Amino acid sequence: MTADVHRPIRKVAICAPATPLKRKYAQAVSRLASDEFPELELHFHEQCFVEEGHFAGSDDTRLAALLECANDASNDAVWFAKGGYGSNRIAAQFLKQAGDAAKNKPFLGYSDCGTLLGALYRAGIGSPVHAPMPVDIKREGGEAAIRRVLAYMSGNPDGLEPSLTDRPVAAFNLYTLAMLVGTPFMPDLTGHEVLIEEVGEYEYAIDRLLFHVTAQIGDIAGIKLGEVTAVPENDRPFGASAQEIVQDWCRRSGISYLGRAEVGHSSTNKIVPFGLEGRTLRA
Amino acid sequence: MTADVHRPIRKVAICAPATPLKRKYAQAVSRLASDEFPELELHFHEQCFVEEGHFAGSDDTRLAALLECANDASNDAVWFAKGGYGSNRIAAQFLKQAGDAAKNKPFLGYSDCGTLLGALYRAGIGSPVHAPMPVDIKREGGEAAIRRVLAYMSGNPDGLEPSLTDRPVAAFNLYTLAMLVGTPFMPDLTGHEVLIEEVGEYEYAIDRLLFHVTAQIGDIAGIKLGEVTAVPENDRPFGASAQEIVQDWCRRSGISYLGRAEVGHSSTNKIVPFGLEGRTLRA
Repeated sequence: MTADVHRPIRKVAICAPATPLKRKYAQAVSRLASDEFPELELHFHEQCFVEEGHFAGSDDTRLAALLECANDASNDAVWFAKGGYGSNRIAAQFLKQAGDAAKNKPFLGYSDCGTLLGALYRAGIGSPVHAPMPVDIKREGGEAAIRRVLAYMSGNPDGLEPSLTDRPVAAFNLYTLAMLVGTPFMPDLTGHEVLIEEVGEYEYAIDRLLFHVTAQIGDIAGIKLGEVTAVPENDRPFGASAQEIVQDWCRRSGISYLGRAEVGHSSTNKIVPFGLEGRTLRA
Repeated sequence: MTADVHRPIRKVAICAPATPLKRKYAQAVSRLASDEFPELELHFHEQCFVEEGHFAGSDDTRLAALLECANDASNDAVWFAKGGYGSNRIAAQFLKQAGDAAKNKPFLGYSDCGTLLGALYRAGIGSPVHAPMPVDIKREGGEAAIRRVLAYMSGNPDGLEPSLTDRPVAAFNLYTLAMLVGTPFMPDLTGHEVLIEEVGEYEYAIDRLLFHVTAQIGDIAGIKLGEVTAVPENDRPFGASAQEIVQDWCRRSGISYLGRAEVGHSSTNKIVPFGLEGRTLRA
C-alpha cells in the first residue's frame, strides 16, 4: 500500500463520455451525497443528460465536457456517469488536450469507460480508478455501490477490492479490454494483476475474447475473474463455465489464474485504483 | 490475375473446425454436387456431425479431422463445413502439424473459419479462399451459393467477388478479424484490399470493432464493405448506418474506403481467394 498522492477530494465533476444518464439517477446520487457526505460537492455536467443517437451528445460535445471536467483545477476528481459505448471515440483527442490540472486527479468509472482509464494509465495522466458510477444507483443495492465510491473519495478505503496485493493492478470489462489491446491506448500491464469482468455475453463470446486478450498480455502477473453476469442462453450449452473458460485460456497462454475478484456489473462492484497508488485518498 | 497454381480439383475433403453441421445439409450438398458436378468427389468427414457442447467435437477431435483432411495428399481441397465459433482454438496446433500435403491445397470457408484462413495465409500454407460453406445450403437461395463454390472448384471463375482488382485481397467477418489482429495468427495485410462483412451485431458493436481493427491495419490498400445483415434493433437508433460507420473509421485512421463488396452471411456471398493467387483453378 502506498501513501496518499491526492489532495483531499471536495469537488467532484461528473460527465458522460459514452451514453447519457437519466436525470433522476443524478438527482438520487446528489441526494445521497448531500445527506451522507456533505463534505463532497457533486457537479453533474449538463452534458450527462444530452441524447444524440446512441451517445450522450456528439463526440465534440462529450469531449468538451470531459476536458472541462478534467482541466478545471478546481475539480478534485472526475467521475464518469455511465458506460454503454463511446468513450473510445474521444480518447485520442482527450489525451492530446488534457492539461496540467488533469494530471493529479483521480478518474473513476468502469465498463466502457475502462477505455479512458486504460488510456490515462498509459499516458500517465491522473489516477485511473475502476469504481461504480452514478448510473449504478438504479441497480438492486445500488445505493451501497454509490456510498462505496463516495466513502472512498472521502478517504475511507473500505470499498477497495478485497483481493488487492502488493502487486500493481488494473481492472477491465473483458470486451472493453479486448478492444483496447493493440491500440495506441493500451497501457503496459507487465507485472500487473489484471481483473476482468463481463456482462451480457455468451460463453462462446467470452471464450473468443479471452483467446484474443490472452494472446497479447502474456507478461502480466495473472488474471483474476470478477463477476460474469447476464450470460444469454444459447441454443446449446457451451460446455464450460466462465471460470473454467478463463482457467483454460490462462493455462493455454501460460498466464497465472489468481482466483476471483469482486468487480462486475452489479452493486457489489468494488474499487480498484490502477497500479499501486490511490489505495487511500486520506490526507 | 495470376495463373493457376493448383492441380485440378477432384476430391474435396470437408470437416468442421468450429460447430457441427446437420447431416441433412451434407446430404443436400452431396446430392447437388453429384447431380451437377460429377467430376467432384465430396467427402464429408464424420467429425462434421459430432456434437460436444458448443463444438463439433472436442478440440482434439476437430484438430484431428482437420489434419486428416489437410495432410492427406489424395485430397485436392479442404472445405470447411460451417463456422459458428471455435476454429481459433485449434489454429496453433494445426499450423504446427500441417504437413507438405497441406501446402498446395485451397482451404475454403468464411465467418469463424476466417481465423484459419488468416492463419494459413500468415503461415504460407495452402491457398485460403473466402467462400460459401456447405451449411449455406440452408439459406434462401443457398443452392446458388453451393453451386458457386463447386463451379469455382471445377475451374469456373464466375463466382469470384466482382470487385477484385490487381491488388492482393483478403476477406473477413469483422468480428473474426477483430479477434485475429494482434494474435500470432494475423497475416500481414500490407497493400491488401480488405473486405469485411458482419452479421447479428449492433451498430455500436460494429463501431467498436472498427475502432479496434482500424487502429491496427493502417498500411492496407483500403477497406471494402460487404453485407451487414441481421443487425439487432437497439433501445435507441445508433445514428449512423454501417457504411457510414466504416467510412468514419476509415477517415479517422487514414484508411481508404473502397466501396462495397459482395461478401456476407447470405447466399450472395462471393468467392475471394486471398492474395493474388487462386483466381482461377482451371488447369
